[in-house]
Amino acid sequence: MQRYFIDQPYQSAIKISGEPHHHMSRVMRMTAGNEVFLVFNDQVAIKAKITEIDNDHVLLVEVAKEALQRELPIAITIASGFPKGEKLELIVQKGTELGASDFVAFPGETSVAKWDAKKQQKKQQRLNKIAQEAAEQSHRQALPTVCFASAKELIRLFEEYDAVLIAYEESAKQGEQAQLVQTFQKLTAGQKLLVVFGPEGGLTPKEIEVFQTAGAKLCGLGPRILRTETAPFYLLSAASFYYELQR
Amino acid sequence: MQRYFIDQPYQSAIKISGEPHHHMSRVMRMTAGNEVFLVFNDQVAIKAKITEIDNDHVLLVEVAKEALQRELPIAITIASGFPKGEKLELIVQKGTELGASDFVAFPGETSVAKWDAKKQQKKQQRLNKIAQEAAEQSHRQALPTVCFASAKELIRLFEEYDAVLIAYEESAKQGEQAQLVQTFQKLTAGQKLLVVFGPEGGLTPKEIEVFQTAGAKLCGLGPRILRTETAPFYLLSAASFYYELQR
Repeated sequence: MQRYFIDQPYQSAIKISGEPHHHMSRVMRMTAGNEVFLVFNDQVAIKAKITEIDNDHVLLVEVAKEALQRELPIAITIASGFPKGEKLELIVQKGTELGASDFVAFPGETSVAKWDAKKQQKKQQRLNKIAQEAAEQSHRQALPTVCFASAKELIRLFEEYDAVLIAYEESAKQGEQAQLVQTFQKLTAGQKLLVVFGPEGGLTPKEIEVFQTAGAKLCGLGPRILRTETAPFYLLSAASFYYELQR
Repeated sequence: MQRYFIDQPYQSAIKISGEPHHHMSRVMRMTAGNEVFLVFNDQVAIKAKITEIDNDHVLLVEVAKEALQRELPIAITIASGFPKGEKLELIVQKGTELGASDFVAFPGETSVAKWDAKKQQKKQQRLNKIAQEAAEQSHRQALPTVCFASAKELIRLFEEYDAVLIAYEESAKQGEQAQLVQTFQKLTAGQKLLVVFGPEGGLTPKEIEVFQTAGAKLCGLGPRILRTETAPFYLLSAASFYYELQR
């Protein structure tokens, strides 16, 4: 069943125009009686039935709340040092399917990609579109957002989180295995985790030091060396396994 | 340090020609004294030093065994119903990084991709090359292989495994959460797990029934609906978290 993210708080009866209306009427050619999922920006998701649809609006009423909880109990933000090419697109698409709460892209010291303000704005729009499509497809109950930040802005974000981890290749090489498990054991439902991933060239010792001084902890993701775009998939999958399957 | 997969059992002193020799001498322009990692086909990995290199051969001697165990304790084979486009390439690349033991591609009933024998052979070569590059990059100690099989051949493989799971979207929708954890709890080091993933259109009820009759169990991968190429990443990451970080 089609899924629409509505940028309003929950209402049991709702009149919709704009993009979702266009998709229902023009793309899907829906008529009165058809049912869809609506996801509101306060994470309430309902099954709703179309009662009226015309050229400008569609009216829907709630049939039932969506029963299954589909959001990870802890909110995980993925911070990625600008990777090359289309890798950020892959991180956002797959990361959204795997339950990421939000994405922050920042220019790492070893980042090859240099995006000016105009390019960033375009890329951000594109990435938010990808997140929305992936959220619809994977039946998310919250819509992840993608933003760009400087390294300084990223560090200022640290205090909003209950834990901050740095996925660090050297930790894997040295066999560091405990930090991720300990962090998951500590965090409880409703808390927030930020995980920082370097670009292809990794994070520099200076970046590591600055992040650690601001409270971040180094964390290994198993004994194999993961590419910059693969590491977030590991982190999110492990979180789902721990909080959603083992609990 | 450069990593080479050698299709021979472990030897402490070795003379190499062919592809790895070419890469060391022509691509990397290595000379006597340079060090590399050699991974033998019995999963022994050593750091080795070049003692002689000429136009045809390179001689190496062992410096030390590689200390860190980099292979998952259980061997996991990923069986994918032919997906569209380049998705199999993505599954093999990321799946290798995440520790898959082997890959089997089979024509699912809903597979859109139809590959004839010639196309399959070409694709298989390409996929094995991708697996090798990913294995080198992620510091694997075993080289995953990719093969193509019919659905019947896939089912005949079941008996070689200690457990067979079917990643089934409907399990996720129904909130099935226990099977994966139970399977991991049951399997111990050295045992083999096969996990079957459908193509984009999913597995048909008939396919499910045939697989179940042959001993496979349905398994959910959390409450979000994962794309066909994302589900194997979840499975492998969860296995690494369980066997390599939590243990």
